Amino acid sequence: MASNGSAGIRDWPPEPGILLDEELGSDWYIYESTEPTAQDDLFPDEIPECHPTISPRMYHTIMAPISLAVILALSFLVKRRRLRQSCWNGVPGLLSPGDLLGQDGPRVAAAAVFGILFSSLCQLVLDPDPLPLVSPASPAAREFWKILALLYYPVFYFPLLGCAGPRHRLGYATGTLLAWGHCGAQLGHRLQCPLAHKIHRLYSALSHVPILLSLALLSLWYPARLIRSLQDTPEPQLPGKSYYRTYLKAVLSKRGQKGSSTKLEESLWSRIRSYLRSYIYIPEEGFRIPLMLVVSVTMAVIAVYQVSLLLLLCVVPALRAVRAGLTKEVTVLLVQLGLVPAAGALPGDMEQELRTARHYLWALEVCYISSLVLCCLLTCAMLLRTLGMHRSNLRALYQGAVLDVFSKAHILRPSRGAVVCWISFSAFQAAFACLGLLIQQVIFFLCSVAFTFLVVIPLQAGTGSLLFGIIRNMWPFWLMLVVAVLVQHLLARFQFLEQHSLQRELTNRRALYIITFLLFPINVLVGVLAGVWRVVISGLYNSVHLCRLDISLLHRGVETFDPGYHTYCHYLKVEVSQCHPLLKAFCLLLLHPGQTEPPAPPRDALLEEGLQLTRPVPAAACGARRRRLRARWWVSYTLLHNPSLTASRKTALAGPAANGAQLGLPRP
Amino acid sequence: MASNGSAGIRDWPPEPGILLDEELGSDWYIYESTEPTAQDDLFPDEIPECHPTISPRMYHTIMAPISLAVILALSFLVKRRRLRQSCWNGVPGLLSPGDLLGQDGPRVAAAAVFGILFSSLCQLVLDPDPLPLVSPASPAAREFWKILALLYYPVFYFPLLGCAGPRHRLGYATGTLLAWGHCGAQLGHRLQCPLAHKIHRLYSALSHVPILLSLALLSLWYPARLIRSLQDTPEPQLPGKSYYRTYLKAVLSKRGQKGSSTKLEESLWSRIRSYLRSYIYIPEEGFRIPLMLVVSVTMAVIAVYQVSLLLLLCVVPALRAVRAGLTKEVTVLLVQLGLVPAAGALPGDMEQELRTARHYLWALEVCYISSLVLCCLLTCAMLLRTLGMHRSNLRALYQGAVLDVFSKAHILRPSRGAVVCWISFSAFQAAFACLGLLIQQVIFFLCSVAFTFLVVIPLQAGTGSLLFGIIRNMWPFWLMLVVAVLVQHLLARFQFLEQHSLQRELTNRRALYIITFLLFPINVLVGVLAGVWRVVISGLYNSVHLCRLDISLLHRGVETFDPGYHTYCHYLKVEVSQCHPLLKAFCLLLLHPGQTEPPAPPRDALLEEGLQLTRPVPAAACGARRRRLRARWWVSYTLLHNPSLTASRKTALAGPAANGAQLGLPRP
Repeated sequence: MASNGSAGIRDWPPEPGILLDEELGSDWYIYESTEPTAQDDLFPDEIPECHPTISPRMYHTIMAPISLAVILALSFLVKRRRLRQSCWNGVPGLLSPGDLLGQDGPRVAAAAVFGILFSSLCQLVLDPDPLPLVSPASPAAREFWKILALLYYPVFYFPLLGCAGPRHRLGYATGTLLAWGHCGAQLGHRLQCPLAHKIHRLYSALSHVPILLSLALLSLWYPARLIRSLQDTPEPQLPGKSYYRTYLKAVLSKRGQKGSSTKLEESLWSRIRSYLRSYIYIPEEGFRIPLMLVVSVTMAVIAVYQVSLLLLLCVVPALRAVRAGLTKEVTVLLVQLGLVPAAGALPGDMEQELRTARHYLWALEVCYISSLVLCCLLTCAMLLRTLGMHRSNLRALYQGAVLDVFSKAHILRPSRGAVVCWISFSAFQAAFACLGLLIQQVIFFLCSVAFTFLVVIPLQAGTGSLLFGIIRNMWPFWLMLVVAVLVQHLLARFQFLEQHSLQRELTNRRALYIITFLLFPINVLVGVLAGVWRVVISGLYNSVHLCRLDISLLHRGVETFDPGYHTYCHYLKVEVSQCHPLLKAFCLLLLHPGQTEPPAPPRDALLEEGLQLTRPVPAAACGARRRRLRARWWVSYTLLHNPSLTASRKTALAGPAANGAQLGLPRP
Repeated sequence: MASNGSAGIRDWPPEPGILLDEELGSDWYIYESTEPTAQDDLFPDEIPECHPTISPRMYHTIMAPISLAVILALSFLVKRRRLRQSCWNGVPGLLSPGDLLGQDGPRVAAAAVFGILFSSLCQLVLDPDPLPLVSPASPAAREFWKILALLYYPVFYFPLLGCAGPRHRLGYATGTLLAWGHCGAQLGHRLQCPLAHKIHRLYSALSHVPILLSLALLSLWYPARLIRSLQDTPEPQLPGKSYYRTYLKAVLSKRGQKGSSTKLEESLWSRIRSYLRSYIYIPEEGFRIPLMLVVSVTMAVIAVYQVSLLLLLCVVPALRAVRAGLTKEVTVLLVQLGLVPAAGALPGDMEQELRTARHYLWALEVCYISSLVLCCLLTCAMLLRTLGMHRSNLRALYQGAVLDVFSKAHILRPSRGAVVCWISFSAFQAAFACLGLLIQQVIFFLCSVAFTFLVVIPLQAGTGSLLFGIIRNMWPFWLMLVVAVLVQHLLARFQFLEQHSLQRELTNRRALYIITFLLFPINVLVGVLAGVWRVVISGLYNSVHLCRLDISLLHRGVETFDPGYHTYCHYLKVEVSQCHPLLKAFCLLLLHPGQTEPPAPPRDALLEEGLQLTRPVPAAACGARRRRLRARWWVSYTLLHNPSLTASRKTALAGPAANGAQLGLPRP
């Protein structure tokens, strides 16, 4: 029905008299149209010609060179001192988009700029004229322009993120100007020309909302950063220090809480509550989701918005237009096809049928919108749950519990495949969210239409439907199945089991075997129903969980063949091996060795790092032997809580089975 | 196309002139037919009226009372001595169909009789006249007769299995007579009237093949048993004894072999070989698959046969008939619909198009048959693999390794749900095999048709197809995706990773971040393809593995919602808790305590049970203390190898967490 509706609107208005394909040469579906078609209802007002002050072409012609210049200029800020220290304090380096590996990158800016890029991609895919810089090309060359545009937009928006990279007030100032420029131009264009011809007149404006929001965010974030950098002049050299310290404290202080939180006996209600709570991501102190995960979840949310917008604006206006333009002639056809029941009145008077057909179309629209809302909510719930799973997986891996996360032992080291998966992780998350929403919408729409037209509308009209007919004709069959299953349960409870002190034991075996044999044919029929249920539930589960990369849709043994889960596993490897907070905390300690050196008071630096929680340091004289012993104790304690670090130790690197030796404590 | 074909044959021969639905009242699809329809080709020979000597009704009228009488008569063999010892050595007991729980039941007879029952069910479902005892009823009452037939057939065939239950020569003699009677009547009917009107004239004969084979098997098995029981007069009281002894020996002697079989470093070829070998079930000494598993796999194989027969005979003859009856008029219609390309000759001459249309129909038939063969092979491979998995799962559970089999801890005790699942396990396996084959056939048929008509036929004809068109138009796009992925892999290999002594480390991070940002839009498109692949592979995997109960189609955390896997888990619980071979071996020891008592020589009985492998028993004088110590040692050794037995010990039953204490050794 939906495709029918959209086809109807695309060829609207039909030539009076002939509704369908003319190419067949034969005159199918001929009827005489007497009423004028409802053309005015469908396109109530033509979209006026609109010429914004800054046309898209002008915007790109101005901003593209500026972007390029900014990239080049900022490259001078990022010096490569390794190559030539003497010349100008080093040669220009690569302008990087912040530290994407690690929890201390520019999170807001990265999420916003990736969002802009993704939204541009969404428009680019649908746009017949992808590159605003050049004039509309021939359809043959359009493919090449699209490919070029796929590379152009990242370069075009790169400075917006790159300005935050050097962590310098000059960068922030440039970023502020750039963000204001982009935001002003885009906002002006949308305000002057809110309507467009593409898909639906509101589509263009609505699909630009994420871009505008992201640009607005950037226009506020850059000035804020600029002001802060002007206030406290010496920008901290190691920005994530406070986070690592918090993580360290949280890890070391958590010892006592673990035992009390796990209860063996939990009520059903508390289990349901904890299950529902697992779908809500509540940030916890001492743990921060890595930057790429933040980016990927933001991308997925934007993907959900863009796809649902597209699904909504492609179908619902078309359905409305078909409903408005429904004539008596089309109703005759629908009645003849059996889609609309005949009211039984005179054949000439089709008022009742017309109303019914309109009601059906309205029901279709309601089904479509409600299933779309359901899909969006489900996908967002899945994304929230994903965040929680990411956190627990990362925590487990930080502590070296590889087998809790993966079903097989993995070596947590970057490899070629792992790096590629890390690069494409957030893109995959966005793409999977798009695809998942699309498939969910198809499935849920079909289900809701089936439910509406087989249950709700027949109940409303008081007539029988196919489903009710089947149920009515086959009730002895269904009753038999229910009775058979009930009888088995009752027999199992009261005849085949007997209570022996504390455990139940099987009894009356002979009767059990007889029942097994006699009920075999009926159980086969029950099994067919169970099989159908298996198909339905696995299909539903997989379609709902398609957007989640952290679970595999395949069975345990073959889960690496699932491209989503494979990407996720490799991503985790890189993330854990490169951004282990404890490792970074140790690096910080190494970079600030001076703080641990002063002997009076010797405990301060250690207190800061949270290590004082391990054991009160005695204030007595610390001999060399004693200090060494204490250091070893700390190392062993740390490794006990973070065994994955063992793999990176000097002794462990000599042997090939680094993963197997994870839990071995260092020899003191 | 397939449904089109079957619809065509159902309404065949069409009235000349009007081909399709007349109820619409308008004259759609009008064309003039000049040639006579090819009616003679479609129904080449009428099936002659056939009256077998023993009609089905007579057969059932005679055999049903005999069956009932046999059930009653054999019940006198099975005495219940508990109730009244004095009267006739006990009152009549229930005639059981052999010991279905346990490895020593009548395996051949059980599989054969369950097979007969299942084949009868298959015919019953399709038969309009389900109960041969009564005259054809009205359609309203037919439903009730079918339900009655579902209960009638098990009772009708029950004596065939029940005769083996008492393990008495009288039972075997009755079984021989019954099997010969059934086999003779059925064989006579099939030989006299091989053709029938149902579905296809050969369907009835072919679908009876499993019944005839099973009856023939029984007609040989019962006499063989009878002869054996006449030869060695004292039938062994405990028939499975030798198996349990073999199992015990195998378990206790296996100690040394385990370590050598697991290699850390395996070549790819040996891994592939071992993977392929895992699909072949090779019986191993010292382990026997439980009876219910044998029955369920036999049922699944018969289900595959019956469903594939039905699928073959429903569609292929219809397709052939459509192909034979294809006229030029229908070809005109097909050309107009665009299904068959016009040859470009004169419109009146359709010879070329007719040949093409016939070729297409032939291709369709080839696709259908080849996909059916593929489905059958795949399902049989899955069933073989299932057998292997059953064995390894049972072995693991016998040794108490619950977590190796289930992902969560389970208490291996019979419960209400477990007993019900045990009852319906083999029926579920059969039903799932049916459903799995059906769904696989639909999917593989569609895939093969798509492949044939999009790739093979265009290549044969040298014309372009839709697929080739898409590939040709979008080649820059596909090239870009391939190049982007390749570039990422090359960069990851040569730029972003550097070899540090033994492990690889990430380097050039800034360039990595830049690549991540710049390739983000292209990676989204790659992600869409990966998502499509994810949908395809999970759909294919689930459809192929639908017939397997031993794996869950859902994710680890929610696998109990999968009805198949849920049934399997519960089935395993009952099977392991009730038929543990070691438990049975101990029971045998208890039932023959006299053999261990005689002090000279004291080692013999123990040697027989394989326990001598644990430690050489010293021939010195055995004091009471020493004997107790040795007994404790044996208990501890046995429990170490079969920790699940711990749950059934007296000390373990006092505490609620019996499962958690599985691995605790008994205090000596």
